[in-house]
Amino acid sequence: MKHRVKAVIAYDGTNYSGWQVQQNSKTLQEVIEKGLTKMHEGRKVTIFASGRTDAGVHANGQTIHFDTDYYVPPERWPITSAGLFPPDIQIVSAEYVEPSFHARYDALGKEYRYRVLATRTRDVFRRHYTYFYPKPVQVEKMREALPFIEGTHNFASFCSTGTSVTSTVRTIYEARIEAHGDELHFVFKGNGFLYNMVRILVGTFLLVGTGSMKPEDMQAVLEAEDRKKAGRTAPGHGLYLERVVYEEGPF
Amino acid sequence: MKHRVKAVIAYDGTNYSGWQVQQNSKTLQEVIEKGLTKMHEGRKVTIFASGRTDAGVHANGQTIHFDTDYYVPPERWPITSAGLFPPDIQIVSAEYVEPSFHARYDALGKEYRYRVLATRTRDVFRRHYTYFYPKPVQVEKMREALPFIEGTHNFASFCSTGTSVTSTVRTIYEARIEAHGDELHFVFKGNGFLYNMVRILVGTFLLVGTGSMKPEDMQAVLEAEDRKKAGRTAPGHGLYLERVVYEEGPF
Repeated sequence: MKHRVKAVIAYDGTNYSGWQVQQNSKTLQEVIEKGLTKMHEGRKVTIFASGRTDAGVHANGQTIHFDTDYYVPPERWPITSAGLFPPDIQIVSAEYVEPSFHARYDALGKEYRYRVLATRTRDVFRRHYTYFYPKPVQVEKMREALPFIEGTHNFASFCSTGTSVTSTVRTIYEARIEAHGDELHFVFKGNGFLYNMVRILVGTFLLVGTGSMKPEDMQAVLEAEDRKKAGRTAPGHGLYLERVVYEEGPF
Repeated sequence: MKHRVKAVIAYDGTNYSGWQVQQNSKTLQEVIEKGLTKMHEGRKVTIFASGRTDAGVHANGQTIHFDTDYYVPPERWPITSAGLFPPDIQIVSAEYVEPSFHARYDALGKEYRYRVLATRTRDVFRRHYTYFYPKPVQVEKMREALPFIEGTHNFASFCSTGTSVTSTVRTIYEARIEAHGDELHFVFKGNGFLYNMVRILVGTFLLVGTGSMKPEDMQAVLEAEDRKKAGRTAPGHGLYLERVVYEEGPF
């Protein structure tokens, strides 16, 4: 009998070229499927994720589903995963769900975190886990710009070209900036995110932080619906997919 | 004119086979010397460290000295180092010292930290930075064992064989265990440490934590002066050389 597993997974994206990419490079999907297939004595297991992540991007709460003919008690999946995957990938929690559940199509929202190391000197231990940004930034100015992007907008200015989506309208439920010691964390919760959207948002907020842009200019950038009006795409290694929401209710 | 630089350096030891080892593997000394030699247009710069660190061991405060015929303002050395070394090595601070200063021979004490991840499941982001130890441990039992190793003792039981030191007597000024969220940190301050001493101490304290050894057994292990009586050598990747002390006075 087949069981459908919904699993929350964490990974350090440093050594991967992303979730699913071209050949000749190691991808997360491929390595996870290989581990699960090994567990199933070679019977191919296909996994479905809430969405892709790019090269170097991390996850604390990526969510996947797959079918298995084994029954592993839910609380044992994290331990089981330790034997299946390399140490930079793990199952955080798992549960059995209805066979109709789909990690991608049933996702109602996502939360991303972007970590900026706001110091003058690098930190050898966080080089893969934060975006080192040595220029002084004014956090209050960036916070003034946050309300402009909250709500439902056409985020075409914050979407990398080369993607074919039917609509570039998305809703951001909450955007905030947290100070954690010498780091600034940008947190975004929304019903969905366009390709590179979080990274371009961060790149644009940093322009506000350094004074190259005024907080209220964020409105004009949004309205332009033009990628060229926004800031640079911040690097992937500062980004974390924190969680995927499937239930209705408070985020 | 030659200037002698005393530099405090930090490194992520993950990708190195140690400070100075055999050929055919990347070592910290070699990579640092290569960077400094490049800065000096090919004139070989030799560095001297307070001591070696093993494969995978990290440092927040390793200390080195070297001579240079350039004058870089002390506060500029960290920035300069960013261009000389790969991103897993950096100069934290630097100062110019008397030409008689020696990073190794003038060291009066060292502080090490050992990070244990005391959780049931691994953490993908800390796999290179903590020793994952899923067995439950009783911290209070381990703390009861700390006083036995403080003070001046023959630490032969806590020294890996194959080293030729004239004396295995060392003084530990302070040994403590700190709880940091889901991590336990063992902190040792002493006038010097034998080969693998901190890692064997941690391996032995963990035996006390799991109940395989009583706190007061630590006394007998010390007195045996026999490596086989102590616990396992904990892995290198949990260990950090925190600082090297050169001045007399409170540690």
